[in-house]
Formats: sequence, C-alpha cells, structure tokens
Amino acid sequence: MSEVYATRRARLRDRCQAGGSQSAVVTRPANVRYLAGAAPRGAVLLIGRTEDVLVCASPPDDRPSEGRPDEALRVHVLPGAGGDPAVAAAGLADAQRADTLAVEEHHLTVARHREIRSVAPRIRLGDLGGAVEQLRVVKDEEEISCLRIGAEIADQALGELLESILVGRTERHLALELERRLVDHGADGPAFPTSVATGPNSGRRGHRPTDRRVEEGDFLSVCLGATYRGYRCEIGRTFVIGTSPADWQIELYDLVFAAQRAGRETLAPGAAFRDVDRAARQVLDSAGHAEGLPPLTGHGVGLEIDEDPQLAPAAMGKLDACVPVTVEPGVHLPGRGGVRIDDTLVVRPEADGGPELLTITTKELLAL
Amino acid sequence: MSEVYATRRARLRDRCQAGGSQSAVVTRPANVRYLAGAAPRGAVLLIGRTEDVLVCASPPDDRPSEGRPDEALRVHVLPGAGGDPAVAAAGLADAQRADTLAVEEHHLTVARHREIRSVAPRIRLGDLGGAVEQLRVVKDEEEISCLRIGAEIADQALGELLESILVGRTERHLALELERRLVDHGADGPAFPTSVATGPNSGRRGHRPTDRRVEEGDFLSVCLGATYRGYRCEIGRTFVIGTSPADWQIELYDLVFAAQRAGRETLAPGAAFRDVDRAARQVLDSAGHAEGLPPLTGHGVGLEIDEDPQLAPAAMGKLDACVPVTVEPGVHLPGRGGVRIDDTLVVRPEADGGPELLTITTKELLAL
Repeated sequence: MSEVYATRRARLRDRCQAGGSQSAVVTRPANVRYLAGAAPRGAVLLIGRTEDVLVCASPPDDRPSEGRPDEALRVHVLPGAGGDPAVAAAGLADAQRADTLAVEEHHLTVARHREIRSVAPRIRLGDLGGAVEQLRVVKDEEEISCLRIGAEIADQALGELLESILVGRTERHLALELERRLVDHGADGPAFPTSVATGPNSGRRGHRPTDRRVEEGDFLSVCLGATYRGYRCEIGRTFVIGTSPADWQIELYDLVFAAQRAGRETLAPGAAFRDVDRAARQVLDSAGHAEGLPPLTGHGVGLEIDEDPQLAPAAMGKLDACVPVTVEPGVHLPGRGGVRIDDTLVVRPEADGGPELLTITTKELLAL
Repeated sequence: MSEVYATRRARLRDRCQAGGSQSAVVTRPANVRYLAGAAPRGAVLLIGRTEDVLVCASPPDDRPSEGRPDEALRVHVLPGAGGDPAVAAAGLADAQRADTLAVEEHHLTVARHREIRSVAPRIRLGDLGGAVEQLRVVKDEEEISCLRIGAEIADQALGELLESILVGRTERHLALELERRLVDHGADGPAFPTSVATGPNSGRRGHRPTDRRVEEGDFLSVCLGATYRGYRCEIGRTFVIGTSPADWQIELYDLVFAAQRAGRETLAPGAAFRDVDRAARQVLDSAGHAEGLPPLTGHGVGLEIDEDPQLAPAAMGKLDACVPVTVEPGVHLPGRGGVRIDDTLVVRPEADGGPELLTITTKELLAL
C-alpha cells in the first residue's frame, strides 16, 4: 500500500511545484488521510522540500478502521500538550529551507495562518486550494472496494430492519438500531447521522430523527451509510407502512423512481454534472414539483460523505470513470410527506457494463 | 427566554465597541447558539450596527433539542443554494453602514475571510477573539439546570448498563447500548463519542471502543455524557469485572480516587485553575505516575464538551461561582490497563454548600 500513498504525494508535489510552491501543509483530515494513510486527530501532513512528515498532537492509534500511517513517512509526535501541528509543520518546512509553503486556505483558520506566518516569517505562504480534493475525485479499485463493502453493510442493516416490526417505534429508535447494525456488520461507524423520517417528515433530505412513531399508512424514508476503512457510502429508500399504499403514494413513488432512474441512466464518463442533475430534475419539474426541490441531485462520496463532484444545475465539469456518486432525488409535500430514493454508484464506461450500482436493496415500493 | 439572549448580545456589543468594532459576525456554532438561542447548520449571527440578524443557509429546524431562534432576532434565510452565510452577513453589515466588523479569526477560514473582504471592501475587519467563549464560562441557573438534567440522564444510562451482563460483550456494543439509553431517557444525543475501554485499554483518556470483549478480571472504564437542550456533561467510572479485584487494581483505584477527590475539594470561587490541577496531579505524581499523565485534569463544559477553563499546569486564571467543570484524573499502565474517574461539578461558594456534584453515580470500586 505504501506506494499508493507515495504516488499520491508525488502527484501533489508536482501540482505544488507547478503552482510555484516548494512545500505544502495539508490540514483537512480527509486530505491528510488520503495522502498519509491515516489522519490521527489534529494531525497535519507536511509535503516537504526534502522529506514528508506527518505531524501529530499525540501518537497515532493503531486500528485498521483509523488507517495506519504510511511507513515511508516520518511521524513526528509533538511532546506533551505541545502546540499546534500545523504551526509545527511550518517550522519543519522552515528547517528544510523551503522558501514557499502552500496551505489549505479553505480549511485553515485566520488565527492559525497568522501563527504560521509568525513561526516562519521568511517563508512565502500560498494557497493549495482544492488540489487534494481534486486528486481524490477519481478512485482506484482499492478505494472502490472499500465503498462496495460499506454499501453491502448498509444493505444488510437496512434489510434486517425491514424484517422487524416497525409500527409504534420512534424515528430516533429506528435510527439508533440501524447504526448498531452497521457496526455489527463490521462498519467503522455510520457514514453520517442516520436519517429516519415518518409520515409528514418522510422525504425530507437530511431529516434528523424525532420522537414521532411509525403509524399505519405512513411513508417511511430512511437514509443511512456505513464507513468502511474510512470510505463512506449512502443509501436511501422509502417504504409504505402496513396496509396497501394510497393512490397519491403510488403516484409520488413512481415519479421519484422515474427521476432517480433517469439520473442513474445518465451516468457515464464524459457526462456533464449538470446533465445528470437535469435528467432527474426535469422528471420532477414536469410533474409540477419544481418548487422546493433540493439544490442538488447527487454528489461524490469517498473519505467524506459529501465531496466533489456536485450534481447540480450550475455545476461545471464532467464525470470520469471510477467516480462514485449518489443519485438521490426526492419530493417532500409539506404536511403530507414524500419520497426519496438514493443510491451510490460508480461511473463506468459502457464497455464495462455502465454504472456500477453499489447499493442493491430493491427499489420496488415495499408495503411493510 | 428572549431577554436572556438579548442581554448576552448586549454584553457582546459592549465588548465589541470597547474594542473599536461597531459590528461582529459570530460563526462558531456554539457561540451562535449561545447568543441566538439556536444554531441551524451553517448559520451565523450578525451583531449589527442597527439590527442583529441570524443568517441561515436553510430554514431553522423547529425542535426543542435544536433550540429556537430568539424571537427578537430577524432570521434571514439565503435563497436556494445561496452562498455562504458569513459572507452574506458581512454584506448586511455593509448595508447597515458599519465601518468596522469583528470576526472570529480562530474559527473563520482564510478563504472565507478573503471573501468577506471582497464583498465588503469598505469595512475594516477586526478580531473578535474568544469574546463569546469568555461570556460562556459562567453559567446562569437555566444553563446549569440543563447540565443537571443531562447528568441525571447519563447516570441513569450508566446505572442500567451495570445491571446487565457484561462479560463477553465488545467495547463497541457497550458504547452503542449506552448511547441508545441516553436517547431513551431524553437526551438530544451523546455529548461526545462514548468511550468504553476494557482490560489493557482501560483508563485511556478518549479511548475509542474496539471489538475487544469484556473478560473476567478486567478493569472496565466508561466515559459518557448526555446532550440536553444543547448542554453537554460528562461522567467517567471504572469498574472491575467478575471476581474480586486484584491487589494492584485496588491500589490503583484508591490512588486515582484520592487524586480525583483532591481535585474536587479544591473547587471554589477564586481557586486558580492550575491549583485544582496540581491538587489532583501531585497525588499521582508522588505515587510514581508522573510519566504519561494527561495534559489536563479537567475542563469546562457547556454548549461544547470541552470549553474554558482548562485545568492544567500552565493554565492562567481563577474559577468563578457557577462555572461547571470536570475533574477527571486517570492513570493508564501500558499493557495492563488503568483507572479514570470523571465527574461534572458546578463551582459554588462554601456558603452554598461548596461544589455541586452533578454526576452522582457511586465512586466505590464496584465488582460487576
């Protein structure tokens, strides 16, 4: 594995040098993990002029779920309650006689930036921008394999929940139960706070579970994901509880299903982000749901649950092969509820069979 | 309640003006909640020249656990996927013809700072520093009451766990079970990731649960807390499993207990932070455990689990009445395990009965 991280760092170093920086301090945790193999709490990575160093506030944890620092890296642990790793990393860059240092201005605070300036006044500070985030967009097969296992875990947890009695239980309990099952099946933990929404809450994106109990006739929408070796996936499904669904429920479900399928079918190398969004969005638009649609139809996943690309009306750019994204349109009717359907897929060329669906739980409307 | 928030904002405004700023943008979520009554995700608060405004990326959630925005505040929701609330707040400050604006440089990123500068180039930007954090240190009785309820919930969850069979269960399962019980008893959620540590892991501060199972003869140390209406408390206890404790276990427990009691007994208005730390630390030091002691003995709690003051050797300052703090010394012997004992207490004057213990679970060494 060590070569993977060394190669990633070499690519970043090339970008830095092309941008005029001899060295860089990476502070955003997911970026540190991507380049170093692990991101102990508060750790930062120096891409140095003569040597790369992982600077940690305390010794790295040695569990697989946390990742292990690449053995080719020097790990520097600050002594005692020994100050700020980013500032210490800038000091190391100075000791390596770098005269330029790029930092992640979208992550670093103004106060830490000033401290770095004062500890290494000789160094010219630049902006690394989203360089590491851009490297992270296209995944290798090892990364996709972690996402695939995470998706299997989420499918299992969801499947088991569907076999249990749901009526009378609260959104909060169902969410906690799902999270327990994720861990049971080997997840590091949930990929994001599990969302369980019933009745009038159903279909709301990012709904935070309340004490409302599941009732007969409710829509129940669930969105969950597992983290596996740091990689985060996402699945969302909507069910109907008890008796057979009402006509409006079937209609709304079919509509969102059609929108989600339209989005999925657009996924291909070279497809514009906005075209994927438009494919799903116009199905909902043309049925009169233009109002209140979420600002995006999907997004990239990986070491963070919401990363580039954004599948949204104003997004610029095109999909590549091996980019995992969600497709997750939904409609929420205030006071009544709604439907969300959310898959994680990996963009693949037609010759390889087209988009690879990671979250395979059925999308038929189940009456539970 | 509205007056409480208005009074807090008035105090902050006074501090800003004393520091030469007519207005301020508060971005740190706990600070926003303290001043506005709620902190919807991404929301920022403008302490304006003519009017205070809560600027939100999306409409505020209306659940008690999230808090409700103070009705005296104008709530401004950005349309659609409408940009950054901090930048929008700076635009509003500009429209109010403020010529100075203080920002939280320890929270704001370099990139957002630059955007603010470009959206309001006429305004001089200053640093609010930790002004809101300082206001938050001394709590009112309403805040203490939320902490007290949170502590009761944590005590209940812990008490129920102790009545169940523990041998053979994993750290991760016990942690999830505790978190479920916190929610069962009315917590908004855990105050921080619940720590369960067995055998050689026991006694490690902030240990993240693994798949290790509880065994006969283990030390078991547990640290958990409830969030109630945004306020976070903390309790930590160590138990011994099964048969009667070994001599080394009894000795180590008695030692940490004595250290923790020494720290608790030092809590009083006017006591120096470092003296509380020293009282606990020297008990452990003089028993030969100077190596590997954690950098602090305790810390403030409130809207965040780790806030000012820090009870540490180099900390400057003195306790006031109505400051809730943890006292949490511990010793971890590599390869063998250890003991942590952690309470949340409120500093009270002697005339009011001395420190108020919020976490009342017994600190006798229980053999489970």
